[in-house]
Amino acid sequence: GVLGSGDFARSLAVRLVCSGFKVVVGSRNPKRKANLFPAAAEVTFQAEAVKKADVIFVAIFREHYSTLCDLADVLAGKILVDVSNNTEINHHKESNAEYLASLFPACTVVKGFNVVSAWTLQSGARDGNKQVLICSNNQEAKRVVAEIAQVMGFTPVDMGCMSSACEIENIPLRLLPAWKIPIFLALGLFLCFFTYNLVRQVIHPYIREQKNKLYKIPIEVVNTTLPCVSYVMLSLVYLPGVLAACSQLYYGTKYRRFPDWLDQWLQHRKQIGLLSFFCAALHAVYSLCLPMRRSHRYLLIEAAVKQAVEKKMTIWVEEEVWRMEIYISVGIIALGLLSLLAITSLPSIANSLNWREFSFIQ
Amino acid sequence: GVLGSGDFARSLAVRLVCSGFKVVVGSRNPKRKANLFPAAAEVTFQAEAVKKADVIFVAIFREHYSTLCDLADVLAGKILVDVSNNTEINHHKESNAEYLASLFPACTVVKGFNVVSAWTLQSGARDGNKQVLICSNNQEAKRVVAEIAQVMGFTPVDMGCMSSACEIENIPLRLLPAWKIPIFLALGLFLCFFTYNLVRQVIHPYIREQKNKLYKIPIEVVNTTLPCVSYVMLSLVYLPGVLAACSQLYYGTKYRRFPDWLDQWLQHRKQIGLLSFFCAALHAVYSLCLPMRRSHRYLLIEAAVKQAVEKKMTIWVEEEVWRMEIYISVGIIALGLLSLLAITSLPSIANSLNWREFSFIQ
Amino acid sequence: GVLGSGDFARSLAVRLVCSGFKVVVGSRNPKRKANLFPAAAEVTFQAEAVKKADVIFVAIFREHYSTLCDLADVLAGKILVDVSNNTEINHHKESNAEYLASLFPACTVVKGFNVVSAWTLQSGARDGNKQVLICSNNQEAKRVVAEIAQVMGFTPVDMGCMSSACEIENIPLRLLPAWKIPIFLALGLFLCFFTYNLVRQVIHPYIREQKNKLYKIPIEVVNTTLPCVSYVMLSLVYLPGVLAACSQLYYGTKYRRFPDWLDQWLQHRKQIGLLSFFCAALHAVYSLCLPMRRSHRYLLIEAAVKQAVEKKMTIWVEEEVWRMEIYISVGIIALGLLSLLAITSLPSIANSLNWREFSFIQ
Repeated sequence: GVLGSGDFARSLAVRLVCSGFKVVVGSRNPKRKANLFPAAAEVTFQAEAVKKADVIFVAIFREHYSTLCDLADVLAGKILVDVSNNTEINHHKESNAEYLASLFPACTVVKGFNVVSAWTLQSGARDGNKQVLICSNNQEAKRVVAEIAQVMGFTPVDMGCMSSACEIENIPLRLLPAWKIPIFLALGLFLCFFTYNLVRQVIHPYIREQKNKLYKIPIEVVNTTLPCVSYVMLSLVYLPGVLAACSQLYYGTKYRRFPDWLDQWLQHRKQIGLLSFFCAALHAVYSLCLPMRRSHRYLLIEAAVKQAVEKKMTIWVEEEVWRMEIYISVGIIALGLLSLLAITSLPSIANSLNWREFSFIQ
Repeated sequence: GVLGSGDFARSLAVRLVCSGFKVVVGSRNPKRKANLFPAAAEVTFQAEAVKKADVIFVAIFREHYSTLCDLADVLAGKILVDVSNNTEINHHKESNAEYLASLFPACTVVKGFNVVSAWTLQSGARDGNKQVLICSNNQEAKRVVAEIAQVMGFTPVDMGCMSSACEIENIPLRLLPAWKIPIFLALGLFLCFFTYNLVRQVIHPYIREQKNKLYKIPIEVVNTTLPCVSYVMLSLVYLPGVLAACSQLYYGTKYRRFPDWLDQWLQHRKQIGLLSFFCAALHAVYSLCLPMRRSHRYLLIEAAVKQAVEKKMTIWVEEEVWRMEIYISVGIIALGLLSLLAITSLPSIANSLNWREFSFIQ
Repeated sequence: GVLGSGDFARSLAVRLVCSGFKVVVGSRNPKRKANLFPAAAEVTFQAEAVKKADVIFVAIFREHYSTLCDLADVLAGKILVDVSNNTEINHHKESNAEYLASLFPACTVVKGFNVVSAWTLQSGARDGNKQVLICSNNQEAKRVVAEIAQVMGFTPVDMGCMSSACEIENIPLRLLPAWKIPIFLALGLFLCFFTYNLVRQVIHPYIREQKNKLYKIPIEVVNTTLPCVSYVMLSLVYLPGVLAACSQLYYGTKYRRFPDWLDQWLQHRKQIGLLSFFCAALHAVYSLCLPMRRSHRYLLIEAAVKQAVEKKMTIWVEEEVWRMEIYISVGIIALGLLSLLAITSLPSIANSLNWREFSFIQ
């Protein structure tokens, strides 16, 4: 059974019908709404629909839950699936599912399907996340809903008892929260270093020697900026660990909570580290592209012609040769090690390591 | 208990014995077959074996299920594990496990272990997929079989009720079905663009100016072909979304099913996108290799010598310099963004994103 | 309830209190220990604590389990969670959890939380592995402990019945055991080939022609060494399969166990293959860096000047050009294929492939 006639209710009905379930839709105005639903779904009055169904998807807004109170008698003993989402994180004190459960103590409430979009329901779980997070205080009801999700082509994930409902309801509102600060940090650092390098490599030579080096902006200036950002970000990964250790030494205990800013910082280390790796990888690609550029070719030919005209056969500055060989060599090794770190932060790899192995690699 | 004496039955017996289980094998000719099984497994007549075992692996072909009907009485109340596979997808109307359940209504049938190969059973789950998909209408029987799988070194995955049996039986027959069309598409596009570039860069100069440019075939022609393929593939990822939106506007509803070809296309977007990324990445590597080539060296020296002989000190075409700097710069950024898309299509990353985050990144 | 007052007990109490649980700590000297625990946790005598709690975390060493025997009566019927670890793999004959269960037959023992570090408990599951492996012979107790783990922010993983306890206890002691042999193998091979190439490319020219080629050591010598290591490692991936087939042909059966050394080798194939890929990828990066080097620039200019002075307009050795084009081209294709193999060895990708697809790609 599906209660409601909104976008989600209709998509849910479509998908349930496609998956071979018998669907009955409860609406307050069944005649007007019937044509919105697939033909195979029976659209009838709410009380009627509830009587016919064992599992009822409540696809209406939290604000209208109380309108169902008239149905309390027919709903008794049924499994209610709360599929609702909020518009803000932690908008209400208790989660929608817990509120529904408090309204209908005679029903078994299961939270689920809210992490799935109406589009995914209509078109089937094609790409992206196929998981449906489910929680309930009743094991049997949870199992029934999990099997329905399975048949619909999703992967049910047991999230334990009803107290997880709040967490599950917050998930669809999340937009990469852990990445916001690290990304702004990286952009800020990039801008600072870019300005410095622009002044040093382009504006200063232009003012002092009237040399036009503007062509250096898209690649060379960016390429000297990236490793600076990468280094600072990498140091920001390891700094909070040192600060945390100092704080523990200062207070003489390991069990005192860290100040909030340090806690936040500790939590963003992984993202800062990955951005550091991303900058380092970009730096590697930019550096490898240097010899492909037209300007590199012109400067090389110019040097050769100058030498040929002056009849100097060879120029070989041992120190410069060695500096470059060692610089490149160390760079490759550093990138190789950073790559290992980046790979171990993939969820499926991280899950296959114990904490001893994880800290060994770190 | 294991019924059957084929390759799978023997591998199963080997593995069960190695995992510390007491194994009894039921055969119609126990004397002749006994030496095929490990010494620790008891080989006896079918009825005898069934009596001694609580969980019975039915490792015989679907065609011979009916030969077990004589044992119906002794089998009653036991857990039967259907490990069979078909030779064709959806060969029979009902899955083997459901057929077995219909023959022995007094037994509890569990589908499982069919996704594991005889080789993996013998040698233990070393690499590749360690999952054993299990489904049954009986929770307790499913749990018992899951624990056996766990002890044998596999990862049991609960696939819900018996209606999933058909899906589980089709899995081992699958050979990257979602990749077939995208790969042929990419190959077709590659061939077309390769021919065009071959004519343009090698055959045309040869006919018109008698210049031998054959050396360009392995790298330069391939390298100009790859980005064309990559671009067309990338556009094919986003085109069906536009067509789907048009179709919805035309029919005035979101709830009508798309035509089959569009549905197919929408389902292959991920694979097409990954092939597009693969071509783009190959293009990047090919481009980076250009300055390593002997031909690049010869052409560079030739230009330098020519300039030196003509005593032209410098040639610097500002436009060419800028075109190349911007071309490389944009290429790197595009590859960086495509890499992010490719990373989010890894199953473990996709599962950690909600659909809002997923569509944001897309 | 928490029994014990060590580091792990205190971290556990901190985390349980933070997750909203009512915690009672049982200690033999509650007055002296009370200040070690968070204020919200009640610290009292062991017998008192056990009476008040339904789920009791036994955070004491295996050696002291017997000191709890006095509490046997009050413990009866409670769920005991064994969180202990050993200091050596397979130190005792039976696992700690099984030993605890044998001491308190009236209790339900659950193994869990031992794979989590005290640090992760204190600070919350931030990065790395969030899984808590749980096993027990009692389904209901396992479910209760799994829900506690869920609320604490971990991902409970059902590992089946008590016989898995030994495996779970060995996990935290593991330090990449499968990688040890392959890494030493790779290092050994690297040293051999490095010495050979050093003699050939640096020492020999120095002795014979007094040429100083020391600058070649950091990049060129390493770069010729890496593909040799990669090739030998790749052949070592496929060799044991051939040997296994030969062994099967020789003994005339597929069901005989392989000799131990071959079995070990077969189990390390994945790691050897990944190291082979790592060397190949490093070789690619080193090769791409060659034209960036100062020495490359000097040698190029030298050649150009020499030619200009001798007024030779062009030098074009067709054979050398072709050799290089084909060498690079084949190298890129080989690296592309190896990358596919490396990607399919990611756990989340491997789990989405059936064994037919996996062997197809291999």
